[in-house]
Amino acid sequence: MIYVTRRECFNAAHKLERADWSAAKNQEVFGPCANPNWHGHNYVLFATVKGKPDPETGFVIDLKKLSTIIRTEITNKVDHKNFNLDVPFMKGILPSAENIVKAFWDILVPHISKMGCTLHSLKLQETENNSVEYFGE
Amino acid sequence: MIYVTRRECFNAAHKLERADWSAAKNQEVFGPCANPNWHGHNYVLFATVKGKPDPETGFVIDLKKLSTIIRTEITNKVDHKNFNLDVPFMKGILPSAENIVKAFWDILVPHISKMGCTLHSLKLQETENNSVEYFGE
Amino acid sequence: MIYVTRRECFNAAHKLERADWSAAKNQEVFGPCANPNWHGHNYVLFATVKGKPDPETGFVIDLKKLSTIIRTEITNKVDHKNFNLDVPFMKGILPSAENIVKAFWDILVPHISKMGCTLHSLKLQETENNSVEYFGE
Amino acid sequence: MIYVTRRECFNAAHKLERADWSAAKNQEVFGPCANPNWHGHNYVLFATVKGKPDPETGFVIDLKKLSTIIRTEITNKVDHKNFNLDVPFMKGILPSAENIVKAFWDILVPHISKMGCTLHSLKLQETENNSVEYFGE
Amino acid sequence: MIYVTRRECFNAAHKLERADWSAAKNQEVFGPCANPNWHGHNYVLFATVKGKPDPETGFVIDLKKLSTIIRTEITNKVDHKNFNLDVPFMKGILPSAENIVKAFWDILVPHISKMGCTLHSLKLQETENNSVEYFGE
Amino acid sequence: MIYVTRRECFNAAHKLERADWSAAKNQEVFGPCANPNWHGHNYVLFATVKGKPDPETGFVIDLKKLSTIIRTEITNKVDHKNFNLDVPFMKGILPSAENIVKAFWDILVPHISKMGCTLHSLKLQETENNSVEYFGE
Repeated sequence: MIYVTRRECFNAAHKLERADWSAAKNQEVFGPCANPNWHGHNYVLFATVKGKPDPETGFVIDLKKLSTIIRTEITNKVDHKNFNLDVPFMKGILPSAENIVKAFWDILVPHISKMGCTLHSLKLQETENNSVEYFGE
Repeated sequence: MIYVTRRECFNAAHKLERADWSAAKNQEVFGPCANPNWHGHNYVLFATVKGKPDPETGFVIDLKKLSTIIRTEITNKVDHKNFNLDVPFMKGILPSAENIVKAFWDILVPHISKMGCTLHSLKLQETENNSVEYFGE
Repeated sequence: MIYVTRRECFNAAHKLERADWSAAKNQEVFGPCANPNWHGHNYVLFATVKGKPDPETGFVIDLKKLSTIIRTEITNKVDHKNFNLDVPFMKGILPSAENIVKAFWDILVPHISKMGCTLHSLKLQETENNSVEYFGE
Repeated sequence: MIYVTRRECFNAAHKLERADWSAAKNQEVFGPCANPNWHGHNYVLFATVKGKPDPETGFVIDLKKLSTIIRTEITNKVDHKNFNLDVPFMKGILPSAENIVKAFWDILVPHISKMGCTLHSLKLQETENNSVEYFGE
Repeated sequence: MIYVTRRECFNAAHKLERADWSAAKNQEVFGPCANPNWHGHNYVLFATVKGKPDPETGFVIDLKKLSTIIRTEITNKVDHKNFNLDVPFMKGILPSAENIVKAFWDILVPHISKMGCTLHSLKLQETENNSVEYFGE
Repeated sequence: MIYVTRRECFNAAHKLERADWSAAKNQEVFGPCANPNWHGHNYVLFATVKGKPDPETGFVIDLKKLSTIIRTEITNKVDHKNFNLDVPFMKGILPSAENIVKAFWDILVPHISKMGCTLHSLKLQETENNSVEYFGE
């Protein structure tokens, strides 16, 4: 079993704000992340796929195809977008890095499976100091 | 003459959109950067100050003080903010990296001068692929 | 279960030298790391906490609070310090990266637990080429 | 149990091309990686060894010795070389990152074992976007 | 005057070998870089353009267009290629980083000029330890 | 004229403390950098040499030779050392990054000149946030 990782980048805006909370409570819990007029990040996504290398190609998965899947299904839909307003699959979900990475997972799993591989983990880096990782359970 | 550089980071939202242009023209010229609902970046700012080291301290400038100036005058005012809506000194200015770095320059120069030093350059990195640098003229 | 990682940096001096060994033996085993007059590093610490995101906040752990814990309990006590001389919790312990990371672990675990989370791993990078990671067992 | 990681770098040429396939099929499957006249990479190898720190030295493994093993057994044999033509242990093996990392694994395991340690994983980064990791099974 | 920098990456093979020198002399002067079967790098190119920001767009140069020029004129022609064998504009030129960056300069200057801007410098990073920069004279 | 840059790394201890000042004044001016028991850094040195590429080799300077000079004259003398106690050429000089880089400059210039090249600049990075650069005047 080999683990293959592809990195993809995108830039997006978001804020952490619950409509059912007062501005004061949002500010208290989320601090500057609750700024009503948004802020944003250069997100970096690492997708790790595991499998046995194909004896003919030496590939667990063709990284160009993995890149195409991630771009088509994820980054083209979130790059230069607002997670709270522009992204259908995040509708009604608070766009914390934790919630974003789980939404990405649910989207990618069937596409990776269709290629005969297993998605092992998704890591989403929000800043050089903060990141989250999800293994599907 | 020694050149001393301090790095400071902040996260902000912005969009490139002229109110006097149609949506179509904004889209044509600025592409995804014109997304009406904003996007954002992890900006990295490098401030370079030049001067002669003080014979007593060996410092061109106390980097803790330089950091405090940049944080007080710049990053505290733009971190987790929206360049188009939240930043008084960017009012009426299209927040391209070029225009942001010039606005930062004008703010920092007098504070650096007051410390007996000269601001040599400001470099603003918007993504790992894109950056701008300004030398004051 | 989501894994959340916070990065914190600090600078410190140390040496690898056993008082019960001769200078020659220290030099033979530890090489330049045994330099009697110390050397130092820009250490980088990655703390990974695991848990389920809170349904209200979308957070496994508030990263500002995790940062505060790490700074209060660890980095404020070791930054710009000497691991052999200045750090009470390293007293009598040879400050190899392995021993440092275990000492950090024992300090952090109760503070992370108090927040209802589980410390998953601590990674300590000593140089860009050398790092250690501990999972608590 | 502590996990200790050493990073080593090397530069090499390779191509992905099967002699039993037509040029057209190689191009179709491997794309630009099949360029007949080769291309190359700055490879980065991360070797992770696990074990208990020695109570006397505080070391899981002496990183200078781990570095020497990796350089002697691996990087000196592949640095500034061509994986398809110059590397005896890759003879007849398509030099995908997956196949390279497995070949490295088989070479390193006995040398790490001889030192009383266990090789936990090998990660090979081919570009900043692409990497593979192997845990031996 | 603002200086705008775009980063673009590519992977290529090369060797440093003069046909008019013996193998021994090539080896003596170029060391492992003369390996007859090539080696390769992940090259990183930084192109810096200077100019005044357009008052309407806030841009010195549209970075998407600068990226397109660099990709069309340079990186598409050298990525996954062999500098000695595959690149017409390097024919008869020893592909040291110095000579590569000068060849890139001559290609890019007219394209940047056509956009009303001035190419200020090209920096080519061959490894994390080695880079060259050219300012056109 | 091409500018060629070589990166070299070393780890060292230092403190900023004047013997002719009280402990209180040292603390007031230098803050945590005055810690009596030292602290340390992973220093990164970038040496930039300028010249015309040799028509035969395509090299401004053989980077292996430049590396050897820097290691022999500088990094071997400061790596795993204490700038205040162990380094003869820093005797009596407060080891601020500014003073270190000037001392390095004076040592390197004649060695670079002997090779027919000109040292253009030395950049010394003390942390990822702080660096200094010197151009010799």
